[in-house]
Amino acid sequence: MSQENIIYIGRKPVMAYCLAVMTALKESESEVTLMARGRAISKAVDVAEVVRNQFLSDLEVTDISIGTEQLETEDGSPRNISNISIVLAKD
Amino acid sequence: MSQENIIYIGRKPVMAYCLAVMTALKESESEVTLMARGRAISKAVDVAEVVRNQFLSDLEVTDISIGTEQLETEDGSPRNISNISIVLAKD
Repeated sequence: MSQENIIYIGRKPVMAYCLAVMTALKESESEVTLMARGRAISKAVDVAEVVRNQFLSDLEVTDISIGTEQLETEDGSPRNISNISIVLAKD
Repeated sequence: MSQENIIYIGRKPVMAYCLAVMTALKESESEVTLMARGRAISKAVDVAEVVRNQFLSDLEVTDISIGTEQLETEDGSPRNISNISIVLAKD
């Protein structure tokens, strides 16, 4: 999978990421992966659902996986943070 | 699937739900489903990851699905809200 069709979900509004998904899919990519960590996980699910329900009804969720990453906090101590990846593909 | 092995993730701390998962699995259930809506989606992923990484390493995520529900807000207008269900099963 090329790096280009991964969209990292952060602090922008849901619609900004919906637009990014649709732009990626127009540029001949047939698959887009949403990646999110921590509280942005809920937003990643929102992006997947909004794109599918409101814009591209032929888009399918082909894979969802969850995991844990160890990040270092500002004071140097490790902290576990959950992540999700959601693969969306054109039918 | 019986109603009993569904755990709804809400406002309690992550560990409260981890305990609920472990209690359900001890009571002869071999499978537990976590259900969450909106911002609690991130917490559901945390619960699944914490139980698997810190308590029950033989637990597997066997299914994750996402969807949209229409809820009515206090002023009567409809609002879409995303949800997730995560199925955890003993190996």
